[in-house]
Amino acid sequence: MGMTQTHTQPSDVEIAQAHTLEPITEIAKRAGIPAEAIIPFGNTKAKVELDKLDPKQEENSQLVLVTGMSPTPAGEGKSTVLIGLADALNAAGKRTAVALREPSQGPVMGIKGGAAGGGYAQVVPMEDINLHFTGDFHAITAANNTLAAMVDNHIQQGNELTIDPRRITWQRCLDVNDRALRNVVLGLGGPAHGMPRESGFTITAASEIMAILGLATDLHDLKERLGNITIGFSYEGTPITAKDLKAEGALTALMKDAMNPNLVQTLGGTPAFVHGGPFANIAHGCNTLAATRAALRSADVVVTEAGFGSDLGAEKFFDIKARAGGLQVDAVVIVATIRSLKYNGGVARDELTKEDTAALQQGLVNLDRHVDNIRSFGVEPVVALNMFISDTDAEREVLAQWASTKGVRIAETRVWAEGGAGAAQLAEEVLDILGTKNAEDEQQLYDPADGVEASIEKIATRIYRAKDVEYAPKALKDLAVIKANGWDQLPVCISKNQYSFSDDATQLGAPEGHTLHVRELLPRTGAGFIVVLTGAVMTMPGLPKRPAAERIDIDDAGKISGVF
Amino acid sequence: MGMTQTHTQPSDVEIAQAHTLEPITEIAKRAGIPAEAIIPFGNTKAKVELDKLDPKQEENSQLVLVTGMSPTPAGEGKSTVLIGLADALNAAGKRTAVALREPSQGPVMGIKGGAAGGGYAQVVPMEDINLHFTGDFHAITAANNTLAAMVDNHIQQGNELTIDPRRITWQRCLDVNDRALRNVVLGLGGPAHGMPRESGFTITAASEIMAILGLATDLHDLKERLGNITIGFSYEGTPITAKDLKAEGALTALMKDAMNPNLVQTLGGTPAFVHGGPFANIAHGCNTLAATRAALRSADVVVTEAGFGSDLGAEKFFDIKARAGGLQVDAVVIVATIRSLKYNGGVARDELTKEDTAALQQGLVNLDRHVDNIRSFGVEPVVALNMFISDTDAEREVLAQWASTKGVRIAETRVWAEGGAGAAQLAEEVLDILGTKNAEDEQQLYDPADGVEASIEKIATRIYRAKDVEYAPKALKDLAVIKANGWDQLPVCISKNQYSFSDDATQLGAPEGHTLHVRELLPRTGAGFIVVLTGAVMTMPGLPKRPAAERIDIDDAGKISGVF
Repeated sequence: MGMTQTHTQPSDVEIAQAHTLEPITEIAKRAGIPAEAIIPFGNTKAKVELDKLDPKQEENSQLVLVTGMSPTPAGEGKSTVLIGLADALNAAGKRTAVALREPSQGPVMGIKGGAAGGGYAQVVPMEDINLHFTGDFHAITAANNTLAAMVDNHIQQGNELTIDPRRITWQRCLDVNDRALRNVVLGLGGPAHGMPRESGFTITAASEIMAILGLATDLHDLKERLGNITIGFSYEGTPITAKDLKAEGALTALMKDAMNPNLVQTLGGTPAFVHGGPFANIAHGCNTLAATRAALRSADVVVTEAGFGSDLGAEKFFDIKARAGGLQVDAVVIVATIRSLKYNGGVARDELTKEDTAALQQGLVNLDRHVDNIRSFGVEPVVALNMFISDTDAEREVLAQWASTKGVRIAETRVWAEGGAGAAQLAEEVLDILGTKNAEDEQQLYDPADGVEASIEKIATRIYRAKDVEYAPKALKDLAVIKANGWDQLPVCISKNQYSFSDDATQLGAPEGHTLHVRELLPRTGAGFIVVLTGAVMTMPGLPKRPAAERIDIDDAGKISGVF
Repeated sequence: MGMTQTHTQPSDVEIAQAHTLEPITEIAKRAGIPAEAIIPFGNTKAKVELDKLDPKQEENSQLVLVTGMSPTPAGEGKSTVLIGLADALNAAGKRTAVALREPSQGPVMGIKGGAAGGGYAQVVPMEDINLHFTGDFHAITAANNTLAAMVDNHIQQGNELTIDPRRITWQRCLDVNDRALRNVVLGLGGPAHGMPRESGFTITAASEIMAILGLATDLHDLKERLGNITIGFSYEGTPITAKDLKAEGALTALMKDAMNPNLVQTLGGTPAFVHGGPFANIAHGCNTLAATRAALRSADVVVTEAGFGSDLGAEKFFDIKARAGGLQVDAVVIVATIRSLKYNGGVARDELTKEDTAALQQGLVNLDRHVDNIRSFGVEPVVALNMFISDTDAEREVLAQWASTKGVRIAETRVWAEGGAGAAQLAEEVLDILGTKNAEDEQQLYDPADGVEASIEKIATRIYRAKDVEYAPKALKDLAVIKANGWDQLPVCISKNQYSFSDDATQLGAPEGHTLHVRELLPRTGAGFIVVLTGAVMTMPGLPKRPAAERIDIDDAGKISGVF
């Protein structure tokens, strides 16, 4: 995400607009992408047809996963480091491509104001990427809500399938931060206007169709998965699927173009596949498998992201995405900041720019835990220390000390101010790891065949370091339904806050011996996993008192400002 | 819309898919559109930057408006005739372009299954045009719902503007036929989740932002209009605008790309500007002013549409769109069918394929009325008799007799089966009218300065032939608010069923002496008109028992079927 640092530098959108972009056809040519695989969207964006790229190249490419330590609410610049690293690798002579998530428009209008890197490490055209882009999120919204309309229409038109209006689990969605839609009663107004019932909206990024887009291998698989969506249950307790409603063809047709990964470029001219955008707290948190594959077919090294920390995006990358796609990770970058280390050491949000080596020392337990977690997946990590203006030499020294004592690779990055040049040292460390090829073959934490409870327990105890898992009454009911319907061997996608390893967002650092509270389990039979809701994580964000939308503007010539 | 006739011919989507499209850059080149004005969306669609086209060419071009008689529920093939006519004009050596509305995806999934002409008179790529197209509707949905979220968020965050939650008029929208969203209660779930209140969703085509897109002259005007949207009233009764919420910049940024007209092609290779899609019963029912302008700058003759009949799309074309854009219409085509004439003569829907000259004779009063109405706007019409397989020679003879007695130009068209060749005679008649240049300068029916009631009365008595107008208590209250806030001199956009000249859809033919019942008046201060709701017209359609979505499919190679 775009970060506000304190020294004088043009805003992200100003930097992006001052940059002269290469035609996307040139970027594609350099990446060896044949012209017939490119569907242009203007001159600087394109969709790429995956099946027109050489699959053999995939096996020869190496994959670098970028994750982070537990963040402050302002974010630690994970995408920014990722983009800077890719530019640095290209500068070092490695043919590199980026695979990233698409920003969700809801948060762009809310707190974030944009999410495509920051400073001199951005993907561009950043306004386009932040606003609508190539329409993938809108396609998901359309498909999601077409299915919802078919569900309520089926009930209205006689309800042959005996759908129980009280047990419909399929919600509508919008790519807007809109808390007033979290809980609604719809179908009001009399018999001509549907059956009154409780429901709600999620943000589009949290739709099961986003997850399906993220994991589908081709159109055939996409249709299969869309058809397998469970929309709710009949009065008799039978799961009702999208296929039962004959919706899978229309939904797949609506998702056809969205299946093609989007190609843009970094400020350094690195090809960037920006595609799919599930959040990592409430969803699986990685760009699409299709985009990662397209990148692997267009470069020797691919740098890709997993949202938030090793407990969220990275765990789900290994256990959900890599499992589904047969991917193997060759190196991991953990983005850390001195601010976040101090935050995890107990410093208040508005004191983070003050030097505090004691708090920093205390906060290192958090980074330690993330390093351990990544090693437990069988991959060697390097810590990228993303430098801020306020960081002091004394603080840097504490980090260097820790790294040398613990035998952890570390590299300082200054990508926000320097772009790729600010990640040269990080690129060296990454290339060193890639050169040793020490990653393990088996990178999954649990075996879904052991059942949902066993999978949750393994993640909770090994990654979150909880002592046990407690199921709320609703969760126990959900578990019974899952077992009764043969869904007990699906992988799990745990929805948890991003600040703490526990389900209590105030427990910073490296809590252990806590209890993971599972409040609800949502079978996502189309995506092929069980969503596990813990704590009080929201699937529909709200807007802040002063939404970013108030500051976004456009002049008569079409130049956008306030997206940052 | 795509029509199902009875002789054997491939389906619309089959015809479209069998056709080899020209690259859109070639179509643009032939239309004299400079390359720098073109933003490609794949190889067969593009957006066109209006301000990069020569405005002087506009004055030299002639405008042909296509409207219809009162339709049957199946539709009479108005777009199909329009497209065929344009292809015929091109074949006759006139440099012609088409300006058409974009189909709404909701009805594509509902009854219609597609709307881009039919048979051998289509705009292509038809599946793309019917599904997402270039994302204009999605941009409207996003802007509309961002504003809605900002309204509820403002109340949640302290409500500085003292917005009265009971008097919020801004609804959310979706491009889905979803009756269950017509009336909802939102903001449920407790204090963290908004203020509970009644609201509802319209279909995106009915959003005020669709109307604004249709009428905005440039980005500056667009921002002005978006800022002027009234979202509701304060507890003190003051109107609250989008500008009060500081939303106009973000909304305009979201609508930036949508402002550019879309360029595609007909099966005959005619350039087609397909842009904007307000319905003609519940909204103003024409493609955007920007698209009509772009077409006028790219051709000598432009054929454009007004939805439904002279009482709906055409009246609004003259009184709203032409007034806003300073357009002048040089000729009008009224599309009629023998089926619809019999329907208006009292024949039941499922008997329309049987010969019935008596009913036909009776139904002619409807066509008569439309001819009179068009002449009252100062333009000479030609009736296009869109032929169906079931039409008989005896029936054709009745029509010919009527036309010669009444002195009405008439031409038979067979565009569904023959494409442009089937509109050669119609093209001749149109060229003959254009050659005489007999259209009047002043083509508006009423002067908004006379006030909303006077405008409604004039349309009701002159066009609908009502004897008077009756205002429901709610409408009287709305009138008082309109007068109190200085909105009384805005043009009116009457929402009425498309089947009858009256507000009772069962009164076919040419009813007169009826009363027009105004049930509600909605100030659309951004679009710059007052929506007048009559009868029981819905702003959110529902799906039928067997939605078209059930038949839409896609194969593993991405070929779509069932969109027709």
